[in-house]
Amino acid sequence: MTQQDTYAQAGVNIQEGNKATQLMKSAIRATYGPEVLSDTGSFGGLYAAHALQAMESPVLVASTDGVGTKTKVAARLNRWDSIGQDLVNHCINDILVQGARPLFFLDYVASSRLDAEKIATIVGGVAAACKSAGCALLGGETAEMPGVYEPGEIDLVGTVVGVVERASILDGSRIQQGDVILTLPSSGLHTNGFSLARQVLNDLDWTQPHPDLGESIGDALLAVHRCYFNPVNHLHEQGIDLRGLAHITGGGVTDNLPRILPENATAVIERGTWTEPPIFRLIQQLGEIEDEEMFHVFNMGLGMLIILPAAQLEQALTLEPELRPVGEITSGERSVAVKGQA
Amino acid sequence: MTQQDTYAQAGVNIQEGNKATQLMKSAIRATYGPEVLSDTGSFGGLYAAHALQAMESPVLVASTDGVGTKTKVAARLNRWDSIGQDLVNHCINDILVQGARPLFFLDYVASSRLDAEKIATIVGGVAAACKSAGCALLGGETAEMPGVYEPGEIDLVGTVVGVVERASILDGSRIQQGDVILTLPSSGLHTNGFSLARQVLNDLDWTQPHPDLGESIGDALLAVHRCYFNPVNHLHEQGIDLRGLAHITGGGVTDNLPRILPENATAVIERGTWTEPPIFRLIQQLGEIEDEEMFHVFNMGLGMLIILPAAQLEQALTLEPELRPVGEITSGERSVAVKGQA
Repeated sequence: MTQQDTYAQAGVNIQEGNKATQLMKSAIRATYGPEVLSDTGSFGGLYAAHALQAMESPVLVASTDGVGTKTKVAARLNRWDSIGQDLVNHCINDILVQGARPLFFLDYVASSRLDAEKIATIVGGVAAACKSAGCALLGGETAEMPGVYEPGEIDLVGTVVGVVERASILDGSRIQQGDVILTLPSSGLHTNGFSLARQVLNDLDWTQPHPDLGESIGDALLAVHRCYFNPVNHLHEQGIDLRGLAHITGGGVTDNLPRILPENATAVIERGTWTEPPIFRLIQQLGEIEDEEMFHVFNMGLGMLIILPAAQLEQALTLEPELRPVGEITSGERSVAVKGQA
Repeated sequence: MTQQDTYAQAGVNIQEGNKATQLMKSAIRATYGPEVLSDTGSFGGLYAAHALQAMESPVLVASTDGVGTKTKVAARLNRWDSIGQDLVNHCINDILVQGARPLFFLDYVASSRLDAEKIATIVGGVAAACKSAGCALLGGETAEMPGVYEPGEIDLVGTVVGVVERASILDGSRIQQGDVILTLPSSGLHTNGFSLARQVLNDLDWTQPHPDLGESIGDALLAVHRCYFNPVNHLHEQGIDLRGLAHITGGGVTDNLPRILPENATAVIERGTWTEPPIFRLIQQLGEIEDEEMFHVFNMGLGMLIILPAAQLEQALTLEPELRPVGEITSGERSVAVKGQA
């Protein structure tokens, strides 16, 4: 009995793991800039930090997250090409709101049984999203956990490390009455609210075009979580005074926007000023869910909220034409009021 | 119907998540040094990198890993206090072999249903291990994934970020013929080989003391993965020329030691020169597993291997009395030969 046999009998397939590593090597290497000193398969990833030495007072910003049960949508449809992009984009947006640019990323994919092609497809998505944000995919781990994961399911976890000048850390403290609130639109649910969405939509067909959506429910649910790094960075580089950024994730605008508001600042958001992706209306109607709950669970089309001085509104709209002004900051208690109808 | 009701019905328990956060707050804060600029609950963790600016050529070293199916042992025994320590110590050792010291850590815990007390116990272990290695627990995520994880099971993932001077990166290239190989002993399986170990030991009682072990099988299996940062750092600070370090994890000494050997260097290891924890003999006997396979799946007591010049052997043994000389470097093909009997 060889070791491979023994370990394979115990549920760990080393050959399949090695095959996955081979399949994803070139996609990972395509994310490397000159800062990356290690190759795939080294112990830890090595990232030369000389860019930090040229900074006044560099602060590393790090965040770990998953994509929630969006993995179950990918599993139901057996489509694995975009879930890695969701992961990276979610994590990058999470540190972007503090003013950080991403340096490198690490991923973790686990399931009950290793499937080399599936893992390589997922990590290919991770690598593609890293590359498009100028972020190195510095490391990762693939785990086979028989008896921990349900058959056919996976979990996908990522960690991003970025950097920001200490004096440029965004925390919303400069937000003031009269500032405007704009949104960069979301593509759909992004990575939040999937447990509720799946429950409501469970018995419908997900593969045929749906008349309310203009696409299938599966396509609408799997729409890739957008990365806002490039447009936000563009605004910043062109001198727009970004006073606050809120990435609308779990808890919706209701929970995420107040986190950056100063005392005595209320955010008033007017419905109808942006386009709400039709998947939200479908979920709301079928689930008989009230407006207030919808805005607490889903992003409702508000992917990233950007708060800036009213005097810079026109310049910002010229720089990033897809920006939509959706509200303003008024005086009042620290909270969000969503007014009007869709 | 409130949002809490709706989302709870869909399998996501926000209140339990908030309770877990409250329970672990103080343990997490206890890991913070003055570099940490954020508090628990912020978007991304903020870590001031001024220490890097005082360095000649700082290189960030990062690694993501899990603890494999050691989580299933914790689940069977319903003991959650040490698995977080396993995670942190494993990750720190993984970057230590490149010469890095840890700066900060991020964790991820997921299960099918949130249990605040269990999560807080696990993260308490993560925080305790971070604190004892002088590493900040900068961030983390708790996920509830109904239908992805088997009931009662969890996965636990961690990412460590450390730093090393570029000129001090360890890669084994200075290892030469005549160098000695020493071990810092392991406490048991650490975090590798659990799928095989559980299969072999599955039908035995894990809670009563076992005559061959002097403790229960459960205690032997859950023995905490040791962190080698402090003893290795001590040797380094006292001027020992660490020519190579190998953390013996999945693949055993057979796969891990050759990764740092130069061409034309063979590592010869003599059994009987160190103490093999009795759990390995029990697994080998019950599973009828050959020696070669044992050394390919398990660490066999060799937790960390350290290669240094023979002239410094006595000094190293004086500095760290638990070090055991277990072999030497000879000329030959890049491989490991384990000789003799236990």
